[in-house]
Amino acid sequence: MLTLYSYWRSSAAYRVRIALGLKGLAYRQVPVHLVKDGGQQHAVEYQSLNPQELVPLLVDGDARIAQSLAILEYLDETHPQPGLLPRDPLQRAQVRALSLHIACDIHPLNNLRVLQYLSGPLGVADEAKTQWIRHWVETGLRAVEEGVANWTGPLSLGERPGYFEACLIPQLYNARRFECDLSGCPRLLAIAARCESLEAFQQAAPEVQPDAQ
Amino acid sequence: MLTLYSYWRSSAAYRVRIALGLKGLAYRQVPVHLVKDGGQQHAVEYQSLNPQELVPLLVDGDARIAQSLAILEYLDETHPQPGLLPRDPLQRAQVRALSLHIACDIHPLNNLRVLQYLSGPLGVADEAKTQWIRHWVETGLRAVEEGVANWTGPLSLGERPGYFEACLIPQLYNARRFECDLSGCPRLLAIAARCESLEAFQQAAPEVQPDAQ
Repeated sequence: MLTLYSYWRSSAAYRVRIALGLKGLAYRQVPVHLVKDGGQQHAVEYQSLNPQELVPLLVDGDARIAQSLAILEYLDETHPQPGLLPRDPLQRAQVRALSLHIACDIHPLNNLRVLQYLSGPLGVADEAKTQWIRHWVETGLRAVEEGVANWTGPLSLGERPGYFEACLIPQLYNARRFECDLSGCPRLLAIAARCESLEAFQQAAPEVQPDAQ
Repeated sequence: MLTLYSYWRSSAAYRVRIALGLKGLAYRQVPVHLVKDGGQQHAVEYQSLNPQELVPLLVDGDARIAQSLAILEYLDETHPQPGLLPRDPLQRAQVRALSLHIACDIHPLNNLRVLQYLSGPLGVADEAKTQWIRHWVETGLRAVEEGVANWTGPLSLGERPGYFEACLIPQLYNARRFECDLSGCPRLLAIAARCESLEAFQQAAPEVQPDAQ
């Protein structure tokens, strides 16, 4: 049985919950509260499992795997059906490039520890912090919107969602939470509408996790 | 012939130069100056090639691929020898997880556009900005240092460097540039010393690029 160390509102953990659902893999979830107790991800026991002190962490037998995209690749290599990525190397690269734009150039600028640093050591006021969030999310998602313009099907695998949607949907969840302007992203919203009707996405949603507040 | 849109001091472009060198692939380099002209990555011609308005971009025939790690995966799938990743899925996941920690949780917080936003809209003073850089680099690299503690060989592929070293060496270059404290990272410095003796790394170094200043 797989074990996922997760936090309901972590968008990186949300990606992995989607991928596990798409593959129909059963897993046990262990909540790691990113705020309580000064952040349970910094506790000695968790740090010994994952020195990166971040969620998610997937435990598969004796193996411990950090980083959501490394977990997605691992799941796709060890449980190939249904695949999360196209088969053609160029199409795989295009999907990975859009996903990495979310995972490297949008999400990390708005995750909890960065927002805490802005408020704390840098003394950034709430309004300016919200502008910071919206700037990176809106700039980044507009580029992703352009990136999906030439797709032949409605989703990254034609009629099926995969790696890309596992990254996009959590980022859109965050964008809505911070009331970002998504009016320039009709294609992404259409992708989201399709995904939201699917069980794998419904069961991965933050609000239905055991640790949701 | 492959074409790489690059900037000498971009650590994401540096990763791809290393990977191309490790695979012995010839390529033409097109410099994109990230500061001059308000940032040439925002110019209409470049934006039409890469809507993400970031370097690197690899052009292979008609294909255009953004995001350094998507490019590394593409090169490894289309030119498998010598491989950049181990063969075993779990070992691949461990290498990807450490690389993604650099690419998602260290580098994006310190790249040029983020530092410009800190200085500009947020009015962060130079000294506080330097502390910000050092905080994320030092915290992140300490976790990477722990991550390599159990390796059986000196490098990620035993005696050979690959995907991981292509991410690590540019990050260490940045760390030194901002005078980060690397005293807690002896294993990473030993890996760097080995890599620096290899031609693929020497030829990818920022200072020897055609656009170096």
